[in-house]
Amino acid sequence: MSAPSSQDRPDVDTLRALVSPRSIAVIGASDDPTRIGGRPLGYMLRSGFQGPIWPVNPKRETIQGLPAFASVDALPAAPDAVIVAVPAAVVPETLEACAAKGAKAAVVFSSGFAEMGDEGRQAQDRIRAIARAGGIRVLGPNCLGVFNAHNGWIATFSSSVEREPPAPGPVAVASQSGAYGSHAFALLRARGVDTGIMITTGNEADVDLADAIGYLVRDEATRVIVAYAEGIRDGDALRAALAEAAAACKPVIFMKVGRSQVGAAAAASHTAALAGSDRVYDGLFAQYGVMRVDSTDQLLDAAQIASRGLFPDGDRLGLVTISGGVGVQMADAAEDCGLSVPEMPADAQRELKELLPFAAVRNPVDVTAQAFNDLTLIGKNLTLMLEKGGYDVVVAFFTVVAGAKAIAGPLIEILTEARASYPDRAMILSLVATPEIVRQYEDAGYPVYEDPTRAVAAAASVMRFGRFFARPAEPAPPAVPAGAPAVPAVMLAEHEATDLLEAWGVPFVARRLAKTADEAAAAAAAIGGRVVLKIASADIQHKTEVGGVIVGVEGNDAVRAAHARLLDRVGSAAPAARLDGVIVAAMAPDGVEAVVGVQRDPTFGPVVMVGLGGVLVEVLEDVAFRLAPFGVAEARRMIASLKGAKVFEGVRGAPPADVEALAGLLARVSVFAAAEAGRIESVDLNPVRVLPKGQGVVALDALIVPVTG
Amino acid sequence: MSAPSSQDRPDVDTLRALVSPRSIAVIGASDDPTRIGGRPLGYMLRSGFQGPIWPVNPKRETIQGLPAFASVDALPAAPDAVIVAVPAAVVPETLEACAAKGAKAAVVFSSGFAEMGDEGRQAQDRIRAIARAGGIRVLGPNCLGVFNAHNGWIATFSSSVEREPPAPGPVAVASQSGAYGSHAFALLRARGVDTGIMITTGNEADVDLADAIGYLVRDEATRVIVAYAEGIRDGDALRAALAEAAAACKPVIFMKVGRSQVGAAAAASHTAALAGSDRVYDGLFAQYGVMRVDSTDQLLDAAQIASRGLFPDGDRLGLVTISGGVGVQMADAAEDCGLSVPEMPADAQRELKELLPFAAVRNPVDVTAQAFNDLTLIGKNLTLMLEKGGYDVVVAFFTVVAGAKAIAGPLIEILTEARASYPDRAMILSLVATPEIVRQYEDAGYPVYEDPTRAVAAAASVMRFGRFFARPAEPAPPAVPAGAPAVPAVMLAEHEATDLLEAWGVPFVARRLAKTADEAAAAAAAIGGRVVLKIASADIQHKTEVGGVIVGVEGNDAVRAAHARLLDRVGSAAPAARLDGVIVAAMAPDGVEAVVGVQRDPTFGPVVMVGLGGVLVEVLEDVAFRLAPFGVAEARRMIASLKGAKVFEGVRGAPPADVEALAGLLARVSVFAAAEAGRIESVDLNPVRVLPKGQGVVALDALIVPVTG
Repeated sequence: MSAPSSQDRPDVDTLRALVSPRSIAVIGASDDPTRIGGRPLGYMLRSGFQGPIWPVNPKRETIQGLPAFASVDALPAAPDAVIVAVPAAVVPETLEACAAKGAKAAVVFSSGFAEMGDEGRQAQDRIRAIARAGGIRVLGPNCLGVFNAHNGWIATFSSSVEREPPAPGPVAVASQSGAYGSHAFALLRARGVDTGIMITTGNEADVDLADAIGYLVRDEATRVIVAYAEGIRDGDALRAALAEAAAACKPVIFMKVGRSQVGAAAAASHTAALAGSDRVYDGLFAQYGVMRVDSTDQLLDAAQIASRGLFPDGDRLGLVTISGGVGVQMADAAEDCGLSVPEMPADAQRELKELLPFAAVRNPVDVTAQAFNDLTLIGKNLTLMLEKGGYDVVVAFFTVVAGAKAIAGPLIEILTEARASYPDRAMILSLVATPEIVRQYEDAGYPVYEDPTRAVAAAASVMRFGRFFARPAEPAPPAVPAGAPAVPAVMLAEHEATDLLEAWGVPFVARRLAKTADEAAAAAAAIGGRVVLKIASADIQHKTEVGGVIVGVEGNDAVRAAHARLLDRVGSAAPAARLDGVIVAAMAPDGVEAVVGVQRDPTFGPVVMVGLGGVLVEVLEDVAFRLAPFGVAEARRMIASLKGAKVFEGVRGAPPADVEALAGLLARVSVFAAAEAGRIESVDLNPVRVLPKGQGVVALDALIVPVTG
Repeated sequence: MSAPSSQDRPDVDTLRALVSPRSIAVIGASDDPTRIGGRPLGYMLRSGFQGPIWPVNPKRETIQGLPAFASVDALPAAPDAVIVAVPAAVVPETLEACAAKGAKAAVVFSSGFAEMGDEGRQAQDRIRAIARAGGIRVLGPNCLGVFNAHNGWIATFSSSVEREPPAPGPVAVASQSGAYGSHAFALLRARGVDTGIMITTGNEADVDLADAIGYLVRDEATRVIVAYAEGIRDGDALRAALAEAAAACKPVIFMKVGRSQVGAAAAASHTAALAGSDRVYDGLFAQYGVMRVDSTDQLLDAAQIASRGLFPDGDRLGLVTISGGVGVQMADAAEDCGLSVPEMPADAQRELKELLPFAAVRNPVDVTAQAFNDLTLIGKNLTLMLEKGGYDVVVAFFTVVAGAKAIAGPLIEILTEARASYPDRAMILSLVATPEIVRQYEDAGYPVYEDPTRAVAAAASVMRFGRFFARPAEPAPPAVPAGAPAVPAVMLAEHEATDLLEAWGVPFVARRLAKTADEAAAAAAAIGGRVVLKIASADIQHKTEVGGVIVGVEGNDAVRAAHARLLDRVGSAAPAARLDGVIVAAMAPDGVEAVVGVQRDPTFGPVVMVGLGGVLVEVLEDVAFRLAPFGVAEARRMIASLKGAKVFEGVRGAPPADVEALAGLLARVSVFAAAEAGRIESVDLNPVRVLPKGQGVVALDALIVPVTG
């Protein structure tokens, strides 16, 4: 299947008819509300869809009490959207009829397409062609549909809406998997978090996950987007949608599965989508402030708290506990989540100690269970923590004690009073109570988590969004250097690659190409000090393997001897290679070794990679990716995200390294990668030496693999 | 506070009176069942304690309907256990009276002891002295008490037992924190997992967490132990208790908080216990098969499934799903948990494909929601997976579909029939249903997790226990070498340290101590090839800093010159150092660099450490610990637990390293560390070079810091 490209994508606003139609038809409507063609009708009659519903069924006069129509043609007008619940074989002609009638969107439940092999894939391609030609947006096939609780449009046969209709709420779910989308929806509802819109994209013949997210970003009722994907068809469109979400300060919580080897294999066999490198998604999500989750609970926890719309932009966590040990546990969790747990100021500690002589008052503040004998103490403590501690979020562990019926009401009152002057700060509770009492706390604005470490993680998730949303404007990617050369469609020798990249702003050590021993000696003298001699040939990519590198050569005679030895060794090891000469290069100063690369991701195009040099990093796969192009601020964060980033600070007596120079290099490489996207397969700068602070960075070697043919 | 040492610990069997008393008294009993002195009485009257209850209160004739006694003296007989709910000031005299009366155990709720500073600490020491002198075991002070649902003994004032009394069950909770213990108890109960015994140890004047675990290991009704600690007072006792649990194949799920810097600081300010290195706990837990958990949900998930007593000893996970994407997600989780997700055999795949033409049949097996139209297909699939796939545990994601009331009964029947021939395999479900339907599945033997990744983690937890319990007998730690020398109480020079350690079985490169240039030249000639010259002096620990090392010296003249240069350099840099001469050592062959160390942990005594050499490992803190002594099998696992262990397999063309030799070295070092425990502060073997497979391992340097004075 050919993936749709961004160029011919209809604008996401065309999804309005799909997600928020004013009139609808059900093709293959069933009178039996338990059958696939009957369920949406039943659901909508209950939820009260705000517009005409036209069942299409040639065999019956009425369907579930509504007048039925014999065909699409016979409909009284063009419906905004249609539900297609017919066998796979007649889906294309049905869609053609709908398009001819003037329908703007269709939801295709039917399975038996790309998931069934080549024939199905062809039928699916036909659906896409019909959609584009007829100007009708098609959801599916093989999908669980869409619902919009805001207008009662329930175009799904999911049993998750059976017990009660979805209620309008701030969360929207966009999921490739119908089963997982409705699983998340059902669990969110069980927590009292309402999902106003769910869109499941199934086989994505036309509408894909990027469309769905893009639409939801612009949808005013949606304040939190939960997304689920196995693989993305159009990376550019997803990137654009996430960029729009970031600009709109709308939180996106994303589960992308297929992280592991076995998971990726399962995903490849399951979906027709290209896999690409999962690690690239980490980079994409970091760039656009998306929260990636690996488990359903992380997803639910984050959606639950994000739905409150409170995103403090700091990282200061205040901890209240009635158990010293759980305070410790929450502090552990805070460090795991990258939050700070700063001490209360000394004067506030003194004040607290007077109020609560039994308490530990640093932070975590252990008010002990005794504070529950006089709840005003809990309020006074909270006031002090917000006012003097300045915490962005306070998490309190009150366990079963706050679960008592007699406690909940008064405690809520006291907490709310204490928080009144700090509406931008959040408070989260960890307690155990009946569902009714939990609801009481939730309704009053206090998200409840039974697990105190999950409460801390939830705090971290909103603060992470808050810091991202509050980020000041960042430097744009560097400009393309004037006259920077394009990458040719042929393999370049190292000296050609370094010259080209130098023009794009990549610093290399001083070097010269020498055709003869005389030229080599002259080059060495001009460069000065000890030099490296390397064979120059586009035919030789791994120079050390043919003895094509000699390091630490100094003095006229030594250079000439090394030159002769090099040509001799390469002559025997690679007699067929065309040689351009020998590169004479300066020895690079000491520094921290890094590797920088560019790869062409099948989904997202050019991505830039950075890692530390050395064998262990290879073993630990400690590398970071970002989609090109990006600015220097993003590059700094990219470097900081490496597990081994501390090496740049200077360990074992080494001076701090020039991280700023490395960040600049990465940003310039990203501009090169983006500008030359169509011409580059990959680029390797390995190693790149990061010199002591203020002294810059130099690449020692370069390899460009161009797109050829 | 002086920590109790293992030597004078009463046997844990003395806890029987504390946990399972036959007669009890309540000192400070209150007629008001909401007060601390009244709650346990109220709880026990409801739970039906199986024995006499004697309230002690001089002011009343009856307490909550029971005849009251004026004093401990006035009791009709010696109670097995007493509850002490009196002000801190009178606790010691109360305990003395109880001991005099012949009581065997006391539960002290009262706070105001070590947690309040020095004075309280002294009072607490007195409690301990009374306990030991009077032969009475004391729980607390400042604790939430103990309960035993098996005989109705509810010696706690926790409100977690207020709604309903605890029910006899297979789980026991041993917790230093009363609040956290009862939090875990309440949440386990909410999941339908009953905690038969809870012991909270509070300030641990006498009974500590090791006692509690030790007792529970021997308690027949207890089949799963959940433990919670902030710091351990007696490492030897904990180790002994965990060893006994391992030998009894009783699973221990342990939350030890204070992992992080800020957490450890909070723990230090909160408890009087010594912190030690948190990483040592990882080693201890690995050695004894304890599952360490970091969050409440991990703890609950593991306890929930472990309480079923089914511990398959493999790592083969079968995955069933009705959503391809969730299959991928579960496969990701399986890899995270170290499980394998092997494919179904080809013939079984063919057979499955015939049954379920729509299905993906490799593993994950995606039966699709269509299988729910004919549940027998789900049964046939499960039979095939158990019979031909040979999976140890099968996890199935059935989401809301299996939550339908009409499905649960028939599905349970079909699953149970399929599993009848494989009673040693477990099956776990991920679904969404009402509590009643979840209970129906649970009661039928199917643990239910809403989050599919948590279902996989739960599977991993029981298989991990299973593999540990099924482990064949392992080689004992190596014997102490005959005539191996003791570590003296003075600092040793390097050559003395290497000679000593060589006698304990640590291989070093060939080396000689040379007093003169002549001797150095002779030594170099005898060793042959290039050598290293190192200054030999107990006064110089960091030789390179004083220019005391010259490497790669070869030939008579060069050795003599290097010898002179070395003495000259050290003479100026460290003129006061007493010199023993110069060590002439062979250059070690190439290999993988590792570091091996011994440390004296304040809690657990001698621990052995291994890590990879190099700056990044230092930054990433990729080291593993084990308590000494241990055998070679444990050493192998210790090495394998390093994140960078793959380096030993040979990367970038390097040959595989002699891991077996390194394991042997670690085991021998552990024997040395244990035998010389009282005399060693620390040992460093840095670097240790692990040669190619079959060629062994050599240490290049050794530093022993002895316990002095």
